[in-house]
Amino acid sequence: MRQRRSVMGERLSYRDAGVDLDAASNHTERIANLVSGGVTGFAAGVPLPPMRDPLLISSTDGVGTKLLLAQELGLLDGLGQDLVAMCVNDLVCVGARPLVFLDYLAVGKLDPDVSAELVASIAGACALAGCALVGGETAELPGLYAPHHFDLAGFASGVVERDELLGPERVADGDLIVGIPSSGLHSNGYSLVRKLISERSLVPDPGLLLEPTRIYVGDMLAALEGGVPVRSAAHITGGGLPENLPRALPEGLGARLDRTTWDLGDAARAILATGRVDEQEAFRTFNMGLGMCIVVAPEGAEQLTALVDGGRVVGEVRTGATGVEVV
Amino acid sequence: MRQRRSVMGERLSYRDAGVDLDAASNHTERIANLVSGGVTGFAAGVPLPPMRDPLLISSTDGVGTKLLLAQELGLLDGLGQDLVAMCVNDLVCVGARPLVFLDYLAVGKLDPDVSAELVASIAGACALAGCALVGGETAELPGLYAPHHFDLAGFASGVVERDELLGPERVADGDLIVGIPSSGLHSNGYSLVRKLISERSLVPDPGLLLEPTRIYVGDMLAALEGGVPVRSAAHITGGGLPENLPRALPEGLGARLDRTTWDLGDAARAILATGRVDEQEAFRTFNMGLGMCIVVAPEGAEQLTALVDGGRVVGEVRTGATGVEVV
Repeated sequence: MRQRRSVMGERLSYRDAGVDLDAASNHTERIANLVSGGVTGFAAGVPLPPMRDPLLISSTDGVGTKLLLAQELGLLDGLGQDLVAMCVNDLVCVGARPLVFLDYLAVGKLDPDVSAELVASIAGACALAGCALVGGETAELPGLYAPHHFDLAGFASGVVERDELLGPERVADGDLIVGIPSSGLHSNGYSLVRKLISERSLVPDPGLLLEPTRIYVGDMLAALEGGVPVRSAAHITGGGLPENLPRALPEGLGARLDRTTWDLGDAARAILATGRVDEQEAFRTFNMGLGMCIVVAPEGAEQLTALVDGGRVVGEVRTGATGVEVV
Repeated sequence: MRQRRSVMGERLSYRDAGVDLDAASNHTERIANLVSGGVTGFAAGVPLPPMRDPLLISSTDGVGTKLLLAQELGLLDGLGQDLVAMCVNDLVCVGARPLVFLDYLAVGKLDPDVSAELVASIAGACALAGCALVGGETAELPGLYAPHHFDLAGFASGVVERDELLGPERVADGDLIVGIPSSGLHSNGYSLVRKLISERSLVPDPGLLLEPTRIYVGDMLAALEGGVPVRSAAHITGGGLPENLPRALPEGLGARLDRTTWDLGDAARAILATGRVDEQEAFRTFNMGLGMCIVVAPEGAEQLTALVDGGRVVGEVRTGATGVEVV
């Protein structure tokens, strides 16, 4: 990564090898003002806050096949938020404050309009997440991607004090689970979504299916800075509640969720309404209305639900329950 | 990113949508012991060393079309080192010590053998670079990549004391430039290499063309810990010496390199021997034998060349010289 975002690859007069340097240069200039940080030429930096015993926490993710649906529907401007959210929502699950974000954008043939739109969307999402987009890489790989195809990967790092690290080891029997609504399907389950669309079981409604993934950084930092006794948290991604919520719980404790306490949301309802996906499969594929679950000491639940937009108690942690029971 | 490396995407019984979960599970198990760090379930962490005024430095890169040549020749085991080197060599240019690395591997269809080979190769390279492979993401994206195609992106973060940050502002007229040999073409210029091969101007000799990128972390840290008065450094990637070395120099100072002081190496000689690329173009496309250039105060040059394997003085910094002159 370079201070001015770089376009990887080859130089000089071989546009005939498929690399368009005029487009690359145009791209670099157009996005230069979107990238912050960058203390020097070869790698970008930000100051670390003074801390007692810091852990550096890092996460990487992509947006999966949601980007294919976005390309098919011609609406790319939410993908940056999806990408940033997928990474930073993992960081806050351990209590880390995201500091920096970098993206890797690989294209078959660089289209400066598309690339600039994607990077602008990433920069906007970084502002929402309170982290600096310190750089990124745009790779033009003519033999690997078809001309209009691209892939996006993101990388976030942040810090947490060691003694404030959230995790399963803090969780006790009787703790409550506060669910925070998702904004839609977020960035998981899109191979199934595209299959349902191709079968004509599902209408490809962009408002329903491309809503950007909610960023939970503000919610989580408000809770932590407000002194809420948060134990652990689970970002509900691929595998849904049954696979992700147990990662916030220790061995021997399970979660019992009350299905009447939250709203599935329009997108999950639309999936179920196709009649092609049974509810159990849907719960294992989509977030089903809850994008983040926070495990909290019982005395902190009221404060937490007041601080977090749409948050409500959706269940509790119980000995004897195995995995996630939805009743 | 998850403590156990995750395979992104969708779950359950929809292998028919193109996502193979048995292969994914096999992949996850096989690479689990390669991933270190990971303090908790959702994002991975390492302790930060005690520092006075730390900067967090981050870098991202890919391996470009070298991976297409590696796939064509059926030799993938050097790509992990290429990926790690491209990222960590940028970090050490500013004096940062790499701490963590994460990879993003996107495939059309998951082949556990190929993926495990790639991640093993990445893990080995992280050991060489002295950083922890704290996690990564494997994305199976059937509609985006052809079945046997994949892309790789890497992310590295490290730290440096603010008052030890290297960079152009430290450089003075009369400083010397120590070049460190490259191991071959490293990871740049491969669109041109593949074009030369397709024209039958160049023999696709894997030993010559796929040698993994040299990792300069050990060299640079030895110099810094040895008290060598290093000013700045340039990782010679796309654009070659003419585009990368000036990034280690301030406005108004140029570099004058003596071409007789270093060896181009066999790979660069083979490119020139095709007769299809003139020397000036080759210098703007390939590293031409020097993968890293370190700018050092004159009194430190002898100590530096003694500490760095193959390092030698290749030029000097001069007022009046513009950009990079090779004489």
